Amino acid sequence: MKFYKYPITEERTEIKIRPIQERPDVRERVEQIVEAVRSGGDAAIQEFTRRFDGVDLPLQAVSRETLSRALAELEPSLRKAIELAIRNIKTFHKAQYLQAQAEDESYIETQPGVTCTRLLRAIERVGLYVPGGSAPLFSTLLMLAVPALLAGAKEIVVVTPPQQNRDYPVTSVVLAAAALLGITEVYPIGGAQAIAALAFGTKTVRAVDKIFGPGNSYVDLAKQIVTTHPACRVGIDLPAGPSEVCIIADDSARIELIVADLLAQAEHGPDSQVVLLTTSTRIFEGLQAELARQTKLLPRRAICEKSLLCARAALLNDLNEALNLSNEYAPEHLILAVNNAQQCLEKVTSAGSVFVGELAAESFGDYASGTNHVLPTVGWARVTGGVSVASFQKWITVQRLTQEGVDGLAPTVALLARAEGLEGHARAAELRMTKYVRGGCNV
Amino acid sequence: MKFYKYPITEERTEIKIRPIQERPDVRERVEQIVEAVRSGGDAAIQEFTRRFDGVDLPLQAVSRETLSRALAELEPSLRKAIELAIRNIKTFHKAQYLQAQAEDESYIETQPGVTCTRLLRAIERVGLYVPGGSAPLFSTLLMLAVPALLAGAKEIVVVTPPQQNRDYPVTSVVLAAAALLGITEVYPIGGAQAIAALAFGTKTVRAVDKIFGPGNSYVDLAKQIVTTHPACRVGIDLPAGPSEVCIIADDSARIELIVADLLAQAEHGPDSQVVLLTTSTRIFEGLQAELARQTKLLPRRAICEKSLLCARAALLNDLNEALNLSNEYAPEHLILAVNNAQQCLEKVTSAGSVFVGELAAESFGDYASGTNHVLPTVGWARVTGGVSVASFQKWITVQRLTQEGVDGLAPTVALLARAEGLEGHARAAELRMTKYVRGGCNV
Repeated sequence: MKFYKYPITEERTEIKIRPIQERPDVRERVEQIVEAVRSGGDAAIQEFTRRFDGVDLPLQAVSRETLSRALAELEPSLRKAIELAIRNIKTFHKAQYLQAQAEDESYIETQPGVTCTRLLRAIERVGLYVPGGSAPLFSTLLMLAVPALLAGAKEIVVVTPPQQNRDYPVTSVVLAAAALLGITEVYPIGGAQAIAALAFGTKTVRAVDKIFGPGNSYVDLAKQIVTTHPACRVGIDLPAGPSEVCIIADDSARIELIVADLLAQAEHGPDSQVVLLTTSTRIFEGLQAELARQTKLLPRRAICEKSLLCARAALLNDLNEALNLSNEYAPEHLILAVNNAQQCLEKVTSAGSVFVGELAAESFGDYASGTNHVLPTVGWARVTGGVSVASFQKWITVQRLTQEGVDGLAPTVALLARAEGLEGHARAAELRMTKYVRGGCNV
Repeated sequence: MKFYKYPITEERTEIKIRPIQERPDVRERVEQIVEAVRSGGDAAIQEFTRRFDGVDLPLQAVSRETLSRALAELEPSLRKAIELAIRNIKTFHKAQYLQAQAEDESYIETQPGVTCTRLLRAIERVGLYVPGGSAPLFSTLLMLAVPALLAGAKEIVVVTPPQQNRDYPVTSVVLAAAALLGITEVYPIGGAQAIAALAFGTKTVRAVDKIFGPGNSYVDLAKQIVTTHPACRVGIDLPAGPSEVCIIADDSARIELIVADLLAQAEHGPDSQVVLLTTSTRIFEGLQAELARQTKLLPRRAICEKSLLCARAALLNDLNEALNLSNEYAPEHLILAVNNAQQCLEKVTSAGSVFVGELAAESFGDYASGTNHVLPTVGWARVTGGVSVASFQKWITVQRLTQEGVDGLAPTVALLARAEGLEGHARAAELRMTKYVRGGCNV
């Protein structure tokens, strides 16, 4: 961990910095995978699956029987926990859905005879990427599927890395969770090849409209490549980078909780971003020892030690300074372990998800408080929020004009159109006016 | 125009097809411009402006004096028309803003002691690209600036192609409109170099958080390149392609209005996409002659004739067939020139903006009905709507837990975290439970 005691301007910049990964070699490899799947379809996927995952199986959807079996074999206490998580995620996300519904079809008359509205429509076919790798992140499936279902997506497709296993082609908990959610289309495909399959479609996997879900740098690059590819129109949820936490702590905070949260972030992966901003000398000076003590307790301590190498802790003069720094950094997760957390919250302008007060560990939001855990990283919180029901929907605007509306608005529109040199636009408006219709006059 | 009488399946595919432009040479050139501006800053921009726009001026913001003068010199009737457009756009977009405001800070208790909410925040610094070229599209400035102002964006930057003119560095109407809207930061820069300046920042132009606005294929490519560039985090509104209209007409429609709308679209540019789906033999068979008659009346007839070369008209059996085809095509603009337009509207699943009934010419929405004209093209309407107030905002999720909330939720979270192999996450939740705090026990 790097320590900054009352940092000066240059040091403040250092605290906010994120590693920039310009890796043209990786980009080139991912582009090759994407193009290979685009032209080679199922056969290319099978080949990459053999090469990257060490799994040699004919490409096919997981059978309904396997899905049901996974659910039947799910450990009852784990099933209960997953059900509770689903319930809380649903409760929170449903409020957003109802809000949007209320706006749907509420007409606004902008001037007499001119009424406009917006219609809410679900994106029809969506693809959810559930990462495998060192930890089977079934929680991501819950975070993506619940808002998709609430939005009313007609078809939900799940892709997740395969495993060499006689009973289950992918982690059985992911299959059980899918079955619990009523999802029936799951493919054992991972990596960039899974993203390419969802984007371009193959004989087995039909293309989707939008791809969701975090993944490693290959998956993230593949998402960026397909969404800007001239030969397909596929949306993506968010660019994804390493997970991040920023904790703002004052002297009221308990150091063992702060450190537990820092380590929960650090254990994600060696590139996890961990930042502590504190006004407490006690915490700042006690950090090193407490980190050492708690790291030893963790099975993933090797990963923690690696990610802590570039972690940052700063001792600051006051909370405003901390909040400014955090807003500029725009962390994925922000924990406000301070006395007057509500007052601090009001000053937060950029963050993915905020945990108010030291009782609110990030872990709660990662799994089951109800908020979404697919959030903006690497500074994207300046620009966008995380996944929500709206991520699975789109608005269509609508306008209607009565004859009064046309007569009132057409002269204005014609004038504006001619000022832009677009005579055809002017004529299309004017032709509808009473004076031309009645007079039978051809403009 | 290509005519399809009761098209069979293969012909239906032809009707929906859009030209795919895979132009690696253009991409390479745009990448070079972007990288040159990234490393060369102001000097690089000045050089591209000289080369591409034929304008050789030191790079600087348009002065306040010039902005005020442009407004003072604006023709009064045009000023009145612009003010009316602003008023209508504001009225419609404000409804979205109020809706979002209502949701802001409404807390949801997902389980006892666990409350979640979302906070609405404006994106702080936004860049608006206003195209120049063959027509000075000041209407785009209105469509972007009004929602930006409603959202509460702190800083609004406008870029627009320069002109060689003693009095005004860019089209004076754009400056007048900017002054009317209260925008004070305008740069005479166009093309890919403008996008790169907004993305990376230079000595003169500070980088923005998100870039908005349509442009030619260079501008569009530049937006896609910067938003996926590893060295910056800049959002973009929408991928942009040539403008499109799809008209669905039954036998109640007047052919002269249909054709006026087709031509209003065609005059945008030679690559405009124009599609007519009709159940009326009269309209289908009368189309050619009416197109020929009206095209002659237009100053931009050469452009119209070019874009009409690849326009499509189909005679179909019934309106359901037309609606299915339109939904699959997902047009930017959809005109429902039919008797029971409301019934048809309910079946629309993908379109940017819908014009209900034959009185609702697309021109009205292009300028002043109140809806936004920055809309999804080339099929993106399957995935996203157009620009709205929400495009300039982001949600931050928030959670709070009481001790009761912690005690109720921590066991579930710990179980889920351990099932994912994340012991640190489990510990961070458990450490907050009463039994550990009270007992002074270290988990």
